[in-house]
Amino acid sequence: MTHLDYMRRLGTQARDASRAMARASTAAKNTALQEIGNALVRHRDSILSANAADMAAGRANGLDDAMLDRLELTPERFDDMLTGLEQVAALTDPIGEITGLRYLPSGIQVGQMRVPLGVVGIIYESRPNVTIDAAALCLKSGNAAILRGGSEALQANQAIAACIREGLAAAGLPEHAVQVIDTTDRAMVDALIQHPEYVDVIVPRGGKGLIERISNNARVPVIKHLDGNCHLYIDDDADFDKALPVTLNAKTHRYGTCNTTETLLVSRAVADTMLPPIAAALAEKGVALRGCPATLALLAGRISALTAATEEDWHEEYLAPILAVKIVDGLDAAIEHINRYSSGHTESIITENYTRSRRFLTEVDSSSVMVNASTRFADGFEYGLGAEIGISTDKFHARGPVGLNGLTSNKWVVLGDGHVRS
Amino acid sequence: MTHLDYMRRLGTQARDASRAMARASTAAKNTALQEIGNALVRHRDSILSANAADMAAGRANGLDDAMLDRLELTPERFDDMLTGLEQVAALTDPIGEITGLRYLPSGIQVGQMRVPLGVVGIIYESRPNVTIDAAALCLKSGNAAILRGGSEALQANQAIAACIREGLAAAGLPEHAVQVIDTTDRAMVDALIQHPEYVDVIVPRGGKGLIERISNNARVPVIKHLDGNCHLYIDDDADFDKALPVTLNAKTHRYGTCNTTETLLVSRAVADTMLPPIAAALAEKGVALRGCPATLALLAGRISALTAATEEDWHEEYLAPILAVKIVDGLDAAIEHINRYSSGHTESIITENYTRSRRFLTEVDSSSVMVNASTRFADGFEYGLGAEIGISTDKFHARGPVGLNGLTSNKWVVLGDGHVRS
Repeated sequence: MTHLDYMRRLGTQARDASRAMARASTAAKNTALQEIGNALVRHRDSILSANAADMAAGRANGLDDAMLDRLELTPERFDDMLTGLEQVAALTDPIGEITGLRYLPSGIQVGQMRVPLGVVGIIYESRPNVTIDAAALCLKSGNAAILRGGSEALQANQAIAACIREGLAAAGLPEHAVQVIDTTDRAMVDALIQHPEYVDVIVPRGGKGLIERISNNARVPVIKHLDGNCHLYIDDDADFDKALPVTLNAKTHRYGTCNTTETLLVSRAVADTMLPPIAAALAEKGVALRGCPATLALLAGRISALTAATEEDWHEEYLAPILAVKIVDGLDAAIEHINRYSSGHTESIITENYTRSRRFLTEVDSSSVMVNASTRFADGFEYGLGAEIGISTDKFHARGPVGLNGLTSNKWVVLGDGHVRS
Repeated sequence: MTHLDYMRRLGTQARDASRAMARASTAAKNTALQEIGNALVRHRDSILSANAADMAAGRANGLDDAMLDRLELTPERFDDMLTGLEQVAALTDPIGEITGLRYLPSGIQVGQMRVPLGVVGIIYESRPNVTIDAAALCLKSGNAAILRGGSEALQANQAIAACIREGLAAAGLPEHAVQVIDTTDRAMVDALIQHPEYVDVIVPRGGKGLIERISNNARVPVIKHLDGNCHLYIDDDADFDKALPVTLNAKTHRYGTCNTTETLLVSRAVADTMLPPIAAALAEKGVALRGCPATLALLAGRISALTAATEEDWHEEYLAPILAVKIVDGLDAAIEHINRYSSGHTESIITENYTRSRRFLTEVDSSSVMVNASTRFADGFEYGLGAEIGISTDKFHARGPVGLNGLTSNKWVVLGDGHVRS
């Protein structure tokens, strides 16, 4: 069977299942989520054995420690899968909600009903627990799913896929509502992302290489996340008692996350007073600074882990205890720097000034814009979405943290009483 | 200069202008719309002369009558451009609206602000008046625009483009906010649709050939409209006094529009009583019927313009006084037929039955679903959008009639008071 034949079979099955999923009741979808959890518990040993076999094969194939760590299904991660299923079951069902239903001058009543996108393809790397997360989100949003995990997690993913099928069957939903691709062939990914007739949206989850490869080759819409080069700007009218803790949190709360601040901009008006103590506090946390010439002049001799920033530093997503620092001539220069170098993820201003806070919110072109808050808040859970498909750095369809609604569309509903157009 | 160089220059200018447009005040945008109208009035004679030159060249190049008709800028069409500008100026500005701003458990306040997409590319065919429509919609929604009209309308489009630049300048907005491509080279279209770094969305307006070519080659998101194969289903519990006028309106109000009904489905339970008088009324309007075997058996001898439907008829968008007719075994068969053959544009059910009306609305997967109303209502103006970019037959980003909001995105707004993530 060629890749295209295999894809056609999967795609046709998914398309058929998506019809049933679109009209599935909230109760049936929640039952399925619960029953998938029950199946996971029943098959816990065989899933962990499958994962152990994947781990052994990974070691034999020379996977590095970071990869092996992501691959491992620890008892804690196993329990997280169960908790995740419960959390998604507890979310409000987005499907079928009708909004804006109002009468128009012709007498018809027009509104919009939220509907699933149809078939969602999710492509991810080593973590086998993503199989459950992804399945749960697609299922709750009334979509059929085609999941393609990393080849190194194949055995655990197939064991988990069997549990998903059991749960779907127990809830009376079609078993093809969630299909986990059982071949490790990379050409299957190419087949998956090239056929809009079978797949309505692709969500890649993983490293930048994976996401770029998929975006460049897809003929299906992609909800994607690229860089997180986030900025914090300390304005002329910043309150130091907010600037200090927010800067520390934005940079040092976690180094490896996409919403961590990577460049600190400080207005020249407050640089002399605010930057030295903030830099000292960062240095104490072990953060190395890459400064502009003015920053170097100000901090030289006071901070040891300080080197000159190059043009590349303004572009860099360090994901490490390193922070680029630039002293700028006020708000206009800050906005210009951000809109030039930012990846459009998240930016925050520290200010007590009404007009400049409004300008920052309006003029900075990023998926999240903040006033007096840490960039670390840019997250679906912190925004109250309850679950997160991912964070989109695109503007089309879904932007920023994406919840269940990102996997939905609308249709127009028109209610008449025999109305004709004149 | 190569196409790519030309595109880079246009794209960079558009990207820069889009920053200014994103923060332009509602007043400035409305002033620009008004001043563009004033410039059109001032330059009326030269625009009409340019159009006359396009028409003469078109005749010399052997354009057919339909094409020449679309190309002609009649006095009425000229005035419609002025009215269109006034209507768009009167619309509520969508940009900057903040929705859902609410407090989260962490204490931050989170909402979403509507923002422009950035740079909109619009590709259209002969009608020069589309240049004004497209420019007005992009301008009001805070986007920069790159417009590429048909080569046959080049002179009129350039004369109109000069008026747009005058209007933008009079309102203090950047002249590159609307750029009309001044070469007729087709390779420019390919350059325009392949560079997401310069263009955020493409809206093709024109025939199916144009739209398919662009969708197949674009690397930029496309808001597109393909077929309009719309269905009307007369249910068991239809009220004949609604079924008759709605069917006549849905089919005969206008034949060439995408929301015209192309297939009539009739439940077997009411076919004997309702179909003959409806068919007679359609025949009287000059509509030829293509019937399924049961329809043929029922109507043979009563209706003269009646032939057997083939499989192709169920797929067909006639855009002509022809209607495919099928007698079906109730709602399930109707929904199955629609979800199989429809282009996903607009479908309507005629029924007094509560449960079946709800099932039709939920289970039919089209951009507009209606109860007891003519499919002809599927239109941005009838839905109260005030203006229409087009009708999308996609599910991603925008579906069905698309108003100004289709050219916008959101960004998340976070307001804190020195909040940090714990």
